[in-house]
Amino acid sequence: MNSNEIAQLLNETAGTLSETKDISKLYHRHRYTDSLPSGQVISEIVDLCRAVIFPGYYGKSTLNAQTMLYTIGVNVERIFDLLTQQVKASLNFCNEEKQDCSGLEDVSSLAMEKASRLVSQLPAIRLDLASDVEAAYLGDPAAESYGEVISCYPVIKALTNYRIAHELYKLGVPLLPRILTEMAHSETGIDIHPGAEIGRHFMIDHGTGVVIGATCIIGNNVKLYQGVTLGARSFPLDDNGNPIKHIPRHPILEDNVIVYSNATILGRVTIGKGAVIGGNIWVTYDVPAGARISQRKHTTEK
Amino acid sequence: MNSNEIAQLLNETAGTLSETKDISKLYHRHRYTDSLPSGQVISEIVDLCRAVIFPGYYGKSTLNAQTMLYTIGVNVERIFDLLTQQVKASLNFCNEEKQDCSGLEDVSSLAMEKASRLVSQLPAIRLDLASDVEAAYLGDPAAESYGEVISCYPVIKALTNYRIAHELYKLGVPLLPRILTEMAHSETGIDIHPGAEIGRHFMIDHGTGVVIGATCIIGNNVKLYQGVTLGARSFPLDDNGNPIKHIPRHPILEDNVIVYSNATILGRVTIGKGAVIGGNIWVTYDVPAGARISQRKHTTEK
Amino acid sequence: MNSNEIAQLLNETAGTLSETKDISKLYHRHRYTDSLPSGQVISEIVDLCRAVIFPGYYGKSTLNAQTMLYTIGVNVERIFDLLTQQVKASLNFCNEEKQDCSGLEDVSSLAMEKASRLVSQLPAIRLDLASDVEAAYLGDPAAESYGEVISCYPVIKALTNYRIAHELYKLGVPLLPRILTEMAHSETGIDIHPGAEIGRHFMIDHGTGVVIGATCIIGNNVKLYQGVTLGARSFPLDDNGNPIKHIPRHPILEDNVIVYSNATILGRVTIGKGAVIGGNIWVTYDVPAGARISQRKHTTEK
Amino acid sequence: MNSNEIAQLLNETAGTLSETKDISKLYHRHRYTDSLPSGQVISEIVDLCRAVIFPGYYGKSTLNAQTMLYTIGVNVERIFDLLTQQVKASLNFCNEEKQDCSGLEDVSSLAMEKASRLVSQLPAIRLDLASDVEAAYLGDPAAESYGEVISCYPVIKALTNYRIAHELYKLGVPLLPRILTEMAHSETGIDIHPGAEIGRHFMIDHGTGVVIGATCIIGNNVKLYQGVTLGARSFPLDDNGNPIKHIPRHPILEDNVIVYSNATILGRVTIGKGAVIGGNIWVTYDVPAGARISQRKHTTEK
Amino acid sequence: MNSNEIAQLLNETAGTLSETKDISKLYHRHRYTDSLPSGQVISEIVDLCRAVIFPGYYGKSTLNAQTMLYTIGVNVERIFDLLTQQVKASLNFCNEEKQDCSGLEDVSSLAMEKASRLVSQLPAIRLDLASDVEAAYLGDPAAESYGEVISCYPVIKALTNYRIAHELYKLGVPLLPRILTEMAHSETGIDIHPGAEIGRHFMIDHGTGVVIGATCIIGNNVKLYQGVTLGARSFPLDDNGNPIKHIPRHPILEDNVIVYSNATILGRVTIGKGAVIGGNIWVTYDVPAGARISQRKHTTEK
Amino acid sequence: MNSNEIAQLLNETAGTLSETKDISKLYHRHRYTDSLPSGQVISEIVDLCRAVIFPGYYGKSTLNAQTMLYTIGVNVERIFDLLTQQVKASLNFCNEEKQDCSGLEDVSSLAMEKASRLVSQLPAIRLDLASDVEAAYLGDPAAESYGEVISCYPVIKALTNYRIAHELYKLGVPLLPRILTEMAHSETGIDIHPGAEIGRHFMIDHGTGVVIGATCIIGNNVKLYQGVTLGARSFPLDDNGNPIKHIPRHPILEDNVIVYSNATILGRVTIGKGAVIGGNIWVTYDVPAGARISQRKHTTEK
Repeated sequence: MNSNEIAQLLNETAGTLSETKDISKLYHRHRYTDSLPSGQVISEIVDLCRAVIFPGYYGKSTLNAQTMLYTIGVNVERIFDLLTQQVKASLNFCNEEKQDCSGLEDVSSLAMEKASRLVSQLPAIRLDLASDVEAAYLGDPAAESYGEVISCYPVIKALTNYRIAHELYKLGVPLLPRILTEMAHSETGIDIHPGAEIGRHFMIDHGTGVVIGATCIIGNNVKLYQGVTLGARSFPLDDNGNPIKHIPRHPILEDNVIVYSNATILGRVTIGKGAVIGGNIWVTYDVPAGARISQRKHTTEK
Repeated sequence: MNSNEIAQLLNETAGTLSETKDISKLYHRHRYTDSLPSGQVISEIVDLCRAVIFPGYYGKSTLNAQTMLYTIGVNVERIFDLLTQQVKASLNFCNEEKQDCSGLEDVSSLAMEKASRLVSQLPAIRLDLASDVEAAYLGDPAAESYGEVISCYPVIKALTNYRIAHELYKLGVPLLPRILTEMAHSETGIDIHPGAEIGRHFMIDHGTGVVIGATCIIGNNVKLYQGVTLGARSFPLDDNGNPIKHIPRHPILEDNVIVYSNATILGRVTIGKGAVIGGNIWVTYDVPAGARISQRKHTTEK
Repeated sequence: MNSNEIAQLLNETAGTLSETKDISKLYHRHRYTDSLPSGQVISEIVDLCRAVIFPGYYGKSTLNAQTMLYTIGVNVERIFDLLTQQVKASLNFCNEEKQDCSGLEDVSSLAMEKASRLVSQLPAIRLDLASDVEAAYLGDPAAESYGEVISCYPVIKALTNYRIAHELYKLGVPLLPRILTEMAHSETGIDIHPGAEIGRHFMIDHGTGVVIGATCIIGNNVKLYQGVTLGARSFPLDDNGNPIKHIPRHPILEDNVIVYSNATILGRVTIGKGAVIGGNIWVTYDVPAGARISQRKHTTEK
Repeated sequence: MNSNEIAQLLNETAGTLSETKDISKLYHRHRYTDSLPSGQVISEIVDLCRAVIFPGYYGKSTLNAQTMLYTIGVNVERIFDLLTQQVKASLNFCNEEKQDCSGLEDVSSLAMEKASRLVSQLPAIRLDLASDVEAAYLGDPAAESYGEVISCYPVIKALTNYRIAHELYKLGVPLLPRILTEMAHSETGIDIHPGAEIGRHFMIDHGTGVVIGATCIIGNNVKLYQGVTLGARSFPLDDNGNPIKHIPRHPILEDNVIVYSNATILGRVTIGKGAVIGGNIWVTYDVPAGARISQRKHTTEK
Repeated sequence: MNSNEIAQLLNETAGTLSETKDISKLYHRHRYTDSLPSGQVISEIVDLCRAVIFPGYYGKSTLNAQTMLYTIGVNVERIFDLLTQQVKASLNFCNEEKQDCSGLEDVSSLAMEKASRLVSQLPAIRLDLASDVEAAYLGDPAAESYGEVISCYPVIKALTNYRIAHELYKLGVPLLPRILTEMAHSETGIDIHPGAEIGRHFMIDHGTGVVIGATCIIGNNVKLYQGVTLGARSFPLDDNGNPIKHIPRHPILEDNVIVYSNATILGRVTIGKGAVIGGNIWVTYDVPAGARISQRKHTTEK
Repeated sequence: MNSNEIAQLLNETAGTLSETKDISKLYHRHRYTDSLPSGQVISEIVDLCRAVIFPGYYGKSTLNAQTMLYTIGVNVERIFDLLTQQVKASLNFCNEEKQDCSGLEDVSSLAMEKASRLVSQLPAIRLDLASDVEAAYLGDPAAESYGEVISCYPVIKALTNYRIAHELYKLGVPLLPRILTEMAHSETGIDIHPGAEIGRHFMIDHGTGVVIGATCIIGNNVKLYQGVTLGARSFPLDDNGNPIKHIPRHPILEDNVIVYSNATILGRVTIGKGAVIGGNIWVTYDVPAGARISQRKHTTEK
């Protein structure tokens, strides 16, 4: 294969790939100078949030109360700047995608307002995460210190992303919340949809394979183990055969529920207060408060 | 422990680690100037492929049809260059490892040819991925837009790597296809062997923990949930007690099959057209078309 | 929202986040000039260890025995330097966290000693890993070469981190071992606590979702599949309602045990020599040597 | 000096440095979200311009006419994007500095227009630089090839920056032209003010220490050696004792003039066509066409 | 030349280069764990100092007085940290080099003290630099704004490094001051020894090739042009034929002196108040206050 | 100016810039897969050479004789690898440029041989540089230690690059030597052509603006000051009016010559042993051994 043949092949391939009529759903038309949401910048936002929420554990060390104020002040301002930029990119992306948000003309000031609201929620988010750290420390005999939990436990990373994403979701920011939780999904194997509502003092041990769907409602003091699915069982279709969006279809877990590893709970069922769901089972019905359900005995051959 | 003692210890350790006779299987002898396949370069190839397959979603934004041609042209040429280099490294690596590919002398031109074939397959790969994006959008009520699916869904990342890797696998490129799918495995928790054959309009929801073995055959419109294993049950050994390679040993899933979360299907069994496999079960036998199988009822104590 | 209002909001948020009295458990006070353990540096240590353990597969290529000595010598010295620094950071972090390690004043020389011990264990760690590579190659028909196993298989990455972390754990280094295994957890989905004791010729296929708890004891020639949990069933609380740490609470797997995918084994039970545990089941009792247990038959509707 | 004393000192210093009333000229107030011109981005613009002007010498290699179009197309588009952004930053910077450009409200579209004009000048700039390359090759016996001149000669780097900066200067872009020529000054030791007018086929040998002032006019086929100054002799002051800006005050060099190393020519003097100015002399008067002036004989002691 | 021959050659060369007895002056023995002064870190210190001295021109933009305090606070603290580390490295380097500083045992606390003194001098350094910026703006008709002077003029970069280096020099820090001024030398072509004493409102136009020796004393309102040397004429040797260090040997320039381009002033001579030294001349004698000296007329041939 | 107009303008500009017939001298045609010499890689080669020549001053610190061997061994091997690659790129570049080197078919093995010869010269280069360091230390009263000279003095950086480049020049490597010396030119302002022959114990003080031409011959113990030019006066043209290459046209400086700042010596003249050339003068004739020449007295007005 000589150079000319290679060049011809590259040119033909580039030409074919530039024809967009057959792949209109794979091709995103930007308005000029709009930028895409950036994974790298969103990742920096996450790092900065961790640094202001867990000072001394993430980011740089601090000297004393006054210099800590400097560091937190700089980080909060930078969170605001980067978030404004990414919220704006997400709003533009969504508008161009849907072409139906005709009222959203002043995207810049809208982005600034949503970013400022998120920033003002950071102290409250921190209090929720403090309760989660405590839950992990008290709930795992292997945890040697709060510092180990904050520094190492995947659940804390996943919940930090989720709790920020959930606030952005409630503020009506498109796309960005999902990017945030998928980042944590890739890092920890814990997949929490930003639409889920999760109470305080929440714990997921180990975490790989956990799925928490978009309309889940989870109370306080709930504990999940790895591989637990809180999913949808089925979903109604519209007249075109497409799934109808935004219908409650995931489980409700009341306070103090425990779900052991690899259990699957599907559909808009309610797991009552204090119930315990054993591992490796498939639950598609309501479970009363205080109940304990577990897998049938196994076949043993010797 | 003083400086001299430390130096002595470092020298002894370096000496021991440099003795290769006991670890001949851990030590790879390169011919001079051959380089290893590079994870960093392969990762760049993946990014470039995503950018030409999903223009406007990955990579940079585009202005109009003509400047899109420039960007795609540059990216296609760079894919070709980097792929030629990595295919060559993989062929050399394999030859040195096995020492039995005596016919493969002109590795450079062979690498260039295989790379050009992969490039020429990119438009076809894009059409398959377009069907996968549609499957994900239609199959998940939580999906707000095609853009969200393309940007965020782990399955699209995993399938992009798999569909490229599968073409390279069919072209007889060693090692590189496996590196590509293991990258996606690390990023998404979805482990698809490049040897598997997978139809169009394929969907994996959430995805963490999914395993699809090397000799699987999967039809069109199949949907898997997280934690599903399509694995081997057992494998025959040769006279030396080593497993015999390349024997069909993984399941066949016909069109329209659905497998729910954490189900395990093992061995060369056939799951018939339209069958539904419930979650958390272990299947080692053929399932007829249209059948639905699910886990036994649980023991509940209250 | 004008600039002054935004500035005021940022100032108020920074002020609130700098008040530490309500979040004393989220706030780590460093002694001046102490640095945090660094994920980036620990990641470099891992890369260097892989390069000296698998020369020619990781790191740079080598020319011959003599120049290999140079490369390994430089890498061993750098492992020692970086490890000394990170062990010191971990000891300081722990001391500040617990405020009860009054005897650990000469942290620098202690760190140097522990780092030198780890370095001197590298040849032994390499022999264990050589047995693991062999187990993966012989146990997977899809493995084409030792090189593919070493380069691609997640289990080898996870075990390299684990075997180093386990030595550091035995040396009494806090925090750092857990950071090492959580890095592998994030990369591979395999979560092995550094306290677990694992024999030679150990194999985990695919691996995503595997959990091996802190007090597990695993013999030689054991094989696990993806999604297997070796966890704790419950744990006693002390008078304050906190879990008592350091009590044996995870399974013992004797030699030659096989556990199939998504099986969950909980509590201080013993799985006897050569037992085979089927997939997707939940085991909370001793299993005798040679036994095979599997899931009950499913309900099938057609 | 203990930690508290250090903290106090840092706080006091930060406080003093934040008081801006005494240093109003050192303190630049940005309007919110305006960014500074970025040295890093401007440096990337220079690299891209070099790549489109000297294809195959700077940037990446090219395969053939068609793939060269891709590369140049991508680079031209990126030059336009980055330049628009930097012109905008420069206009904002200038407006904030002077607070007298009340008419410049639509800075974004103004920046886009000026950037597009510069881009449309790139082919003409390339023709000028082609003549400069030829002048260097023909004028230096040490030049082995055009490739060596383009790749290595400082004069080509300095003139590329200058010729771009001069177009921007004529377009009325503030600050940015000066940043461009100061970058070349730092890299090559050649200091050309963007306001100078320089003909074609211009050559500076070696170049370190050359200064060409803002109102210089230089004809075609002029050659300077290192250390030559074309400067101002003196300048009139206004009623406040400040120098009056924008008055012609630097030399005019007609066609074919040669100035040897370390010569200094000051003031609005004219060096006539074909004149030769010897090294290490100080010229503050007109020199007629064709004249040769040189330093007086030296004192020699033996 | 085959692989073995190359390996042998590399080994022999490495062996020869590792023999240190013949090159004891080229070989620096570190005490274990001491690090070298780092060009990269020192460069970061310079950037941080520019950012606190010229807020809004260097570093990031600022929102208002309160958030400016955060940024400056963080930067001042980081200057202190990095400077402490580099002063310590310089002290160690010097001690090992000279092996005669037996009293300097507590290098860490000494470094911290010297760093804190430098930090406390930053406001005074800023006032001096403010006068230099004013001198450049008023002294150059081409200067369009203070912002242009601060952002672009090499003299401001050189003087920032010099004024910091001079304070460190007075504090007795070895090596580091020279590294700082050589960085500016490389960047601007202006070579100011940190030992020189320079008054306020100092201006160097263009700057390339300027040399200001270690024992120079320069008054207020002095202006130099490019290529000016303030050097030593000769220096006495000691009994071993080595130059005697620390003897005053460079010029004194009184207030309001102007020296034009490429003039060379050598030896401990005094240039009186308000004197003007013409370009391209060589001065080795005292010049009275108010005098103007210039080059002899040239030989002109026509 | 709307998006379409901008797109049209970018397309037209890209099209014009892709037409190569008018700029054949600015356009370099690569053979496929040949790469350009890389400034970044060459810069790494320089850093590695400095690290093996001045161990402990550049690069990393060393522990003791044995671990120093490791570091030097690794660095020497990497110098060889990178140099082979860059020599090959330079040979290809030159061949393509001149299209007259038909005999140079086996460029790879030729590159390897030239690289190995350069490596074998490193010990000799180090001895020359040791003499230069001594010359700088003894010749400058401001030099506090050998370490300061090696770490800070521009002359040492310039001579390291020159002495390596000169060996490559003698080996017939095109382009690369010039790139090496131009790198030092940009860094230090000292421009030494790689063809010049320079003896031992050579010193350039300060250095900015020094030019040493391609056919200079400089003896031992020579000392230059900043701004000195050793250049060509004129050069004969061939029948086409192009300068004839490779004719001796630069000065010869015999042993022990001193040339003061900004002096210019032009043409194939000989400056005799021990002669002293004063500053700011222009010399175009032979100077006898031991002579001292200096500038005429100035005009002084008071």
